[in-house]
Amino acid sequence: MIHGALLKDAPLSPSPPLAQEPVTEPTLDLDRWRRRLSNELWGSVVPFWMEHSLDRELGGYFNLLDRDGGRFGDDKHVWLQGRQVWMLSKLFGDGGDERHLEAARLGAEFLREHAVGPDGRAYFQLRRDGAPVGIQRKIFSECFLVMAYAEYARASGDATYRVLALELFDRVLALVDDPTPLGRPVLAGQRPAQDLSVPMILLNLVAELRGAPGSDTFADRPDYDDIERRCVARMLRHFDRGRGLVREQVAPDGTPIDSPEGRLLNPGHAVEAAWFLAEVAHRVGDAGLEADAFAMMEGALDAGWDAEHGGLLYFLDADGFSPTQLEWSMKLWWPHCEAMIGTLMAWRRTGEARWWERFDRIASWTMDHFPDPEHGEWFGYLTREGEVSQRFKAGPYKGFFHVPRALWMCERLLASVDAD
Amino acid sequence: MIHGALLKDAPLSPSPPLAQEPVTEPTLDLDRWRRRLSNELWGSVVPFWMEHSLDRELGGYFNLLDRDGGRFGDDKHVWLQGRQVWMLSKLFGDGGDERHLEAARLGAEFLREHAVGPDGRAYFQLRRDGAPVGIQRKIFSECFLVMAYAEYARASGDATYRVLALELFDRVLALVDDPTPLGRPVLAGQRPAQDLSVPMILLNLVAELRGAPGSDTFADRPDYDDIERRCVARMLRHFDRGRGLVREQVAPDGTPIDSPEGRLLNPGHAVEAAWFLAEVAHRVGDAGLEADAFAMMEGALDAGWDAEHGGLLYFLDADGFSPTQLEWSMKLWWPHCEAMIGTLMAWRRTGEARWWERFDRIASWTMDHFPDPEHGEWFGYLTREGEVSQRFKAGPYKGFFHVPRALWMCERLLASVDAD
Repeated sequence: MIHGALLKDAPLSPSPPLAQEPVTEPTLDLDRWRRRLSNELWGSVVPFWMEHSLDRELGGYFNLLDRDGGRFGDDKHVWLQGRQVWMLSKLFGDGGDERHLEAARLGAEFLREHAVGPDGRAYFQLRRDGAPVGIQRKIFSECFLVMAYAEYARASGDATYRVLALELFDRVLALVDDPTPLGRPVLAGQRPAQDLSVPMILLNLVAELRGAPGSDTFADRPDYDDIERRCVARMLRHFDRGRGLVREQVAPDGTPIDSPEGRLLNPGHAVEAAWFLAEVAHRVGDAGLEADAFAMMEGALDAGWDAEHGGLLYFLDADGFSPTQLEWSMKLWWPHCEAMIGTLMAWRRTGEARWWERFDRIASWTMDHFPDPEHGEWFGYLTREGEVSQRFKAGPYKGFFHVPRALWMCERLLASVDAD
Repeated sequence: MIHGALLKDAPLSPSPPLAQEPVTEPTLDLDRWRRRLSNELWGSVVPFWMEHSLDRELGGYFNLLDRDGGRFGDDKHVWLQGRQVWMLSKLFGDGGDERHLEAARLGAEFLREHAVGPDGRAYFQLRRDGAPVGIQRKIFSECFLVMAYAEYARASGDATYRVLALELFDRVLALVDDPTPLGRPVLAGQRPAQDLSVPMILLNLVAELRGAPGSDTFADRPDYDDIERRCVARMLRHFDRGRGLVREQVAPDGTPIDSPEGRLLNPGHAVEAAWFLAEVAHRVGDAGLEADAFAMMEGALDAGWDAEHGGLLYFLDADGFSPTQLEWSMKLWWPHCEAMIGTLMAWRRTGEARWWERFDRIASWTMDHFPDPEHGEWFGYLTREGEVSQRFKAGPYKGFFHVPRALWMCERLLASVDAD
């Protein structure tokens, strides 16, 4: 009656041993995957959003979309609005056309007008017309606006958004240094702790502001290298090398915290963190950091893979207790997207067949379970057994981001083989 | 692949038709249920908490307890600490003994010392030693302290707690009138809305302060009747008579709000609200209100019953969309506890066989799935299929409250038949 992974004495379900022999005929598989992912991106995912999400009347994007694209609500969520602007702007420069740039503009202009309040804080949730409904005591709305404005400035050439991106980035840095304006209570019993998500998003923002080599680097600010170095150091403190685990929350010096919060594992999040680190390592040529990044990734995938039903579990407890998160055993789209990117990146950088096999296994499970061939796009939330739990395609936390980013990045990683 | 209840065109799964003929040999079943529930309370549930939860060293109760009673964390949650004081104090007066009063004192003294901060707000989460960790922008910590102090004052005769209860109750009323001190943002796009939970908890607090007929009524404050009347009116605005649905959030005049929040149904919560109303109706002899309460209950049970796997679904959308809550299809212990109380109360008040059948069906499913005969107490969180999802017995929202309250109240309702 009790799931295997819940037994206290049971180890966190390891993946089956990886074969060490090289994959035969890799080229065949490469081409097949490249076609499959490209078709999914341009034939299913992009059309769904271009058809159903654009609010041509009031601007921005509808992001509460049912299975068939019909709306089940009109509110607009700033994380998702910003990420959609970012993704559309990226695609405009790589496979997309003027329609995608125009769609990006629809979101960028809406956000510029409505996303930030008079106190400089970015909202979380807006009405269809942009009136604010909710605000989080977190920095992520601001962060996704930085990404949106930076990439849209690059795609459109509109320098207004360049200024907005840099101003908001400074505001994010200030909020990380002094979070008082976020309004989170400071209480005597709180354990000193740091969350993986904060250095992760900052590292990602620096990468986005720098842009691809040769692109507009947003004035190549003198603080990029320093922020990057500090973020990398902070992120590595979450990696428990001895056990191969990545903890979501640790003490500032990296010491594990023995509480449900301190034992929390989020395998998909750890894999995303790992590929962010691997990208930095690749750019600066740091082989040690690259090895750490792939060790983090391997540990997270070993911990998170569901040996019984396949796919990645959402949350685990480092010591095998039940996570307090009710949705711990669900299979969410985004950890699988991040695992596709991460494993393929590890294969490209190391050339090791075992990483190709990991990619093939995870991408196969993902493509077998999440896409909706009938109406396009992917389901986001599956039960542990892989059945659809939530039928909507877009919800308060699921937008035009993880799916197209994974398909687009994987397609690029596969295409890069030709250049070898 | 998609759950039946998720199809947009499918009606919310109704329960099988109820038989109208009277139940044969009800006495036999009555005795069987009475024994079974009493044995569960005194043989499994109370011993688990008396053995594992009392922190004799630092006071209060451990409320992060694994399947076998072992601790998976030391933090203490104020909702649960208060509710445990309340329940132990109740049991002391009805089946319990000095050990239960002493255990209640352990929590009451801990809360008196640590639960409320210098600004008068009650915390949500404390360290083992009482140092504050977290605070909610909600009134419920304060409310459960009122219940705790009132019942402990009654059980112990200690007038200090009587004063504390009344002071905190005044503070709760002030926060309902003017929620500014809670610190929730007020934003231009927010729809005017009221949550069912607020009038519900106030109605419950008045009932707890009044106490049983003949008991200490806490000075029988002149505002009890007025608060009660206003709460009843507000709660009834959540009842969509035409469709038999109870909405968690409506406009202040009761108009439905067409958004995911406004369409949200929580069948277990609706059933709890209904039996709170039925108790008021019974006390004041309001047959119309009693009929409304049982109509609410029937609608909620029809909407929430899972025809495929049995048990009550946690969340639904009034128009059949997927709820955005990831855990919508899980089976939680507390809606089942509330449904046991509610259906048995409806049977006692109406004498209708269909309510006995409802009780028998829900209580049977509950007793077949939640109790843990090996280590005592109940599991709290099951998958839709009825498998254990979280193996812990006590967590941040599950304490010594819904299970013992349901077993204790059902046992009393069954015992009251003898008095007829």
